[in-house]
Amino acid sequence: MFTITQPDTQPSDHIQHQINNKTKPLGALGQLEAVALQLALIQQTEKIEIMHPHLLVFAGDHGIAQHGLSIAPSEVTAQMVANFLAGGAAINCFCRTNDMALKVIDAGIKVEPEDHPNLVKQRLGHGTEDFSQYAAMTESTVLHALQYGADVVEKLNQKSCNLVGFGEMGIGNTSSAAAIMAALLNIPADECVGRGTGIDDQQLQRKVDLITQALDLHAERLSDPLSILASVGGFEIAQIVGGMLKAAENKMTVLVDGFISTAAAMLAVSMYPEANHYFIYCHCSEESGHQRMLQHLNATPLLSLGLRLGEGTGAALALPLLRSACCFYNEMASFEDAGVTV
Amino acid sequence: MFTITQPDTQPSDHIQHQINNKTKPLGALGQLEAVALQLALIQQTEKIEIMHPHLLVFAGDHGIAQHGLSIAPSEVTAQMVANFLAGGAAINCFCRTNDMALKVIDAGIKVEPEDHPNLVKQRLGHGTEDFSQYAAMTESTVLHALQYGADVVEKLNQKSCNLVGFGEMGIGNTSSAAAIMAALLNIPADECVGRGTGIDDQQLQRKVDLITQALDLHAERLSDPLSILASVGGFEIAQIVGGMLKAAENKMTVLVDGFISTAAAMLAVSMYPEANHYFIYCHCSEESGHQRMLQHLNATPLLSLGLRLGEGTGAALALPLLRSACCFYNEMASFEDAGVTV
Repeated sequence: MFTITQPDTQPSDHIQHQINNKTKPLGALGQLEAVALQLALIQQTEKIEIMHPHLLVFAGDHGIAQHGLSIAPSEVTAQMVANFLAGGAAINCFCRTNDMALKVIDAGIKVEPEDHPNLVKQRLGHGTEDFSQYAAMTESTVLHALQYGADVVEKLNQKSCNLVGFGEMGIGNTSSAAAIMAALLNIPADECVGRGTGIDDQQLQRKVDLITQALDLHAERLSDPLSILASVGGFEIAQIVGGMLKAAENKMTVLVDGFISTAAAMLAVSMYPEANHYFIYCHCSEESGHQRMLQHLNATPLLSLGLRLGEGTGAALALPLLRSACCFYNEMASFEDAGVTV
Repeated sequence: MFTITQPDTQPSDHIQHQINNKTKPLGALGQLEAVALQLALIQQTEKIEIMHPHLLVFAGDHGIAQHGLSIAPSEVTAQMVANFLAGGAAINCFCRTNDMALKVIDAGIKVEPEDHPNLVKQRLGHGTEDFSQYAAMTESTVLHALQYGADVVEKLNQKSCNLVGFGEMGIGNTSSAAAIMAALLNIPADECVGRGTGIDDQQLQRKVDLITQALDLHAERLSDPLSILASVGGFEIAQIVGGMLKAAENKMTVLVDGFISTAAAMLAVSMYPEANHYFIYCHCSEESGHQRMLQHLNATPLLSLGLRLGEGTGAALALPLLRSACCFYNEMASFEDAGVTV
């Protein structure tokens, strides 16, 4: 479905020169050097740059939410979508501050929202089925979701956007992400389940039990990423997977946000391992399990600010670090240029 | 010498409302909420804002550098000052990218540089004395240094700047910072000394031995911050201390950078504990000892990117996080405003 080319992993002399032969000790810019290297390997241009960066917030509702595993009911998904479109949410603030365009994608929330210039409707239903009892969606829906996600990114690419961040909103989606993680890593639910945005001990235990039950129910279908998505996924998560893979196909840089966005990245990488070269892991969230996901992906996140909100907030906050990496790569003086005698 | 007022530590109802009553779970923005709270307590205005942010790079040379404890000779200090003024260093790139004005202060490098619009000359000599043999400077010079540092910040304050970051350049200044740390915390030199920008094992041992010798030599004079500065400090470090304290006096926010900037912050806080309320610790550097300094100050740094360059790079990279904190505090919708029913 996607054709993803792995970028060169060996930097050219030009790239090494641009990073190493600057007025600083070797390696002294730490992770910013790793970011510059990754962008240079992806872009393969004389200078590296971030063009028309976009943050995509995919929203979807989850049948599993009817069990009250979250601090809020499913209605809040639509209310937060309205908030995103009105410009009042945290992700709006961070996109405005960091000069990033924001689009909201209705991947299938309970009630269809009104039209809005920043809203893309590609609804797959009124929320998924309750995956503790049924498959969350059909495999055919998963394929539609991947295509929908890819479509959004393809349009951005055609408008010269070369960097896209992925955020999400969906009451219940930490349960889906935890089930995906458990299925992909083949580990028990209690090692994947966290407090989401802030549930208590009793809710936490109920969440573990329900996800364990769901993993048992779907046990025979959890052997590949598409079946995992169909069994325990979410509309927004599946569309994010498609968007991430299309971005990698187009050699765009992908900003991965928190727990749910990283679950999507794990699925994408499990389908196309070479896609991971296009992914930048932006932050480590407070959600237990996220750190383990990042370890599994061999990823060192850029930020660790104790965020536990999703929406793409970590991705938007990390963008200025990428801009600084581009600037030092493109503009910083070499020892010769500056007449420094080290 | 300074009159520093501690800001209220109890947030008003307005401040609590601005942080907590937003369309997010309580505490979900992690350290950004702590930053917003700190700025709100400092500024005590309806909205919080960052006005005309400046990054000050204080440069000075060190007599101790003649022992070859660094990867570079003292001449590199002046060469890097020229690089800062030409716009070619890492800190120039990060200030440009993050919309921060940059000033370079010659606090006393070996050879006086030529005049430049972005250079402030307040030279205290041609570098300090070798503190392994003599006092680095006189106590009278320390007092001059504090005043010079304060003068630069006072001028910025008069031009409506309300945030200032402190960086430094000075071959040998990790030795001075390590000696200051050992003296302030009363711990052995080997717990404070690191590899600076990248020395080998033999140089590292020589650095520990020299600083241990220096701490013995000055043992009787290391009982207060001014004497510590006179004994083992640097011209740039002493001016930074004065600048930080003047900023606190003026209720400006101070961005503390890496190991050397934090050594200055420790001295400032040791003189005026209430100054610490104005300080934001921007990053944890790779220099061993920095983490221990931050623990001592009870500080949670915003970034941890493996930087080991100084110059104020960590401070400039952290600035966008402060802007995002201001934006969510000022502009993010409350549950009522957004019609979210949590």
